[in-house]
Amino acid sequence: MKCQVCRDKADIKVPRHKTAFCTKHYIVHIHHQIERAINKFKMFSKEEIVMLGVSGGKDSMALWKALIELGYNVQAVHINNRFGEFSEKSEAVVRKFAEENNADLKVYYFEELNGFNFKEALKYVNKPVCSLCGVLKRYALNRLAKELKCEVSVTAHNLDDEIAFLLGNILHWQMDYLKRQSPVLEAEPGMIKKVKPAIRVTDEELRKYVEVWGIDYIKDKCPYSVGATSHFYKNIMDQLETQYPGTKINFYQGFIKNFKTNLKEEVLKTKKAENYCTECGYKTIREDKCFVCSLKERIQNGGKFKK
Amino acid sequence: MKCQVCRDKADIKVPRHKTAFCTKHYIVHIHHQIERAINKFKMFSKEEIVMLGVSGGKDSMALWKALIELGYNVQAVHINNRFGEFSEKSEAVVRKFAEENNADLKVYYFEELNGFNFKEALKYVNKPVCSLCGVLKRYALNRLAKELKCEVSVTAHNLDDEIAFLLGNILHWQMDYLKRQSPVLEAEPGMIKKVKPAIRVTDEELRKYVEVWGIDYIKDKCPYSVGATSHFYKNIMDQLETQYPGTKINFYQGFIKNFKTNLKEEVLKTKKAENYCTECGYKTIREDKCFVCSLKERIQNGGKFKK
Repeated sequence: MKCQVCRDKADIKVPRHKTAFCTKHYIVHIHHQIERAINKFKMFSKEEIVMLGVSGGKDSMALWKALIELGYNVQAVHINNRFGEFSEKSEAVVRKFAEENNADLKVYYFEELNGFNFKEALKYVNKPVCSLCGVLKRYALNRLAKELKCEVSVTAHNLDDEIAFLLGNILHWQMDYLKRQSPVLEAEPGMIKKVKPAIRVTDEELRKYVEVWGIDYIKDKCPYSVGATSHFYKNIMDQLETQYPGTKINFYQGFIKNFKTNLKEEVLKTKKAENYCTECGYKTIREDKCFVCSLKERIQNGGKFKK
Repeated sequence: MKCQVCRDKADIKVPRHKTAFCTKHYIVHIHHQIERAINKFKMFSKEEIVMLGVSGGKDSMALWKALIELGYNVQAVHINNRFGEFSEKSEAVVRKFAEENNADLKVYYFEELNGFNFKEALKYVNKPVCSLCGVLKRYALNRLAKELKCEVSVTAHNLDDEIAFLLGNILHWQMDYLKRQSPVLEAEPGMIKKVKPAIRVTDEELRKYVEVWGIDYIKDKCPYSVGATSHFYKNIMDQLETQYPGTKINFYQGFIKNFKTNLKEEVLKTKKAENYCTECGYKTIREDKCFVCSLKERIQNGGKFKK
């Protein structure tokens, strides 16, 4: 097969687009997909400072490299959860990339950031690990974005992540989640704007992108994510894509185009009452302190709620 | 395991409901599921004559038996498509049941009904076989219901059929199909009321029901349906149900509860313009003759449209 652009030997096939590229034009292709999402959904400009959460996995490493190459102004942030060897390797990978690419990186440690450690928090909360980690990461990134004077918070969720989440939400008709699932969540008081520029690219395509550049990344899945629902839904979507190519992108684009736009105004409005935490100002459905501030307080009091 | 009702030995497990029944109470359970759907969606009463399309497969045989046992007034209709041995066996099965159960059955033959044969029609139409068969069957059943003075047309679509169809429609966001997917389609001028009383019961549960009664049914799939998309989607939904029991019914019930009710009025209204066929009075999106009358004319003219 020949490269779609230069007709040289194609090293990388992209079956989803029924095409192939040489290494150079594969990079251009991925950049083009990312820029299309950034521009279409008005995510950010080259003048803004964008904060990117980098875990050390292929997705965030790929997006980090791509945004730098495309000339965006990236402040990378890594949170080390202290999950043992996995976390230490992850930190090493992002530090190495920052050095080699002269990239801005801030590293934070879970305990210093939150005032308690992750394993301790798990004892007090009846949530799956991935769910608690997600809540605490979103909370921390929102706070850090303000401190670091970033205008927008970028995450490396890709097409496979989004459709796995979408499938789960649709199978259970989680209307509150469905209403909020979007490539862009605009800023609100207490909440920074959040965007996902990698939504047009799959797991496999991002993996090839980092490999083409020879970028180190963490190949293992987080040890706590074993058996996560999202892995199961990704496998289901892979089967559908293999049988009917194009299913993934059509499913996601159809959702963006046909779901929210067809909902009644009042359905979009009827959210749970949203208040702001009396402690940190973070948006919360609670009346007093937000989930994270309450959890912190509970841990500090040895499991008892302060009266 | 013991029967949930009488505590006798349970012969039949129903994993989806985390329970088991003896043969007698399994029958009661299935009847209860069917009556729940009939009553909840106000499908029909014991005073009305309901027309049931019976193919000879497990679903229609099960529903036929259940409706008779429940005391409904059923006029069964079988259409023999002349697909060779498969069709002849199917006709024999429904005739045998009618005799043994003293049930009302009318048998029709595709060619006499439509004025052309199915294989001939396939040459003139660019549709998958299952899709063409579906269009022609719905057309015929609608016409026959009037002739037979039935108030409602019943089909034996079950939970697996409905969610396979739903999954396909959602993966492609087929809004027109999604808007019309319902356990009940009310009567409109030229169109009889259509209902699906088996929507709370799965393939496997209906199979067990006919086997418990010792009713003969066609075990083979229609030879033309090999590779049908619906088989693939059913397999996907089976995987989801095995991993997360309850997924099937939640997916369907959530759709009924949360999808249409949350759509804008204008979205529900903005259907394609709907006219009535100048030849047969069937509802059509065409301006002159409906799809079936046009097809008939085309076949009669040897493939050319009449000027």
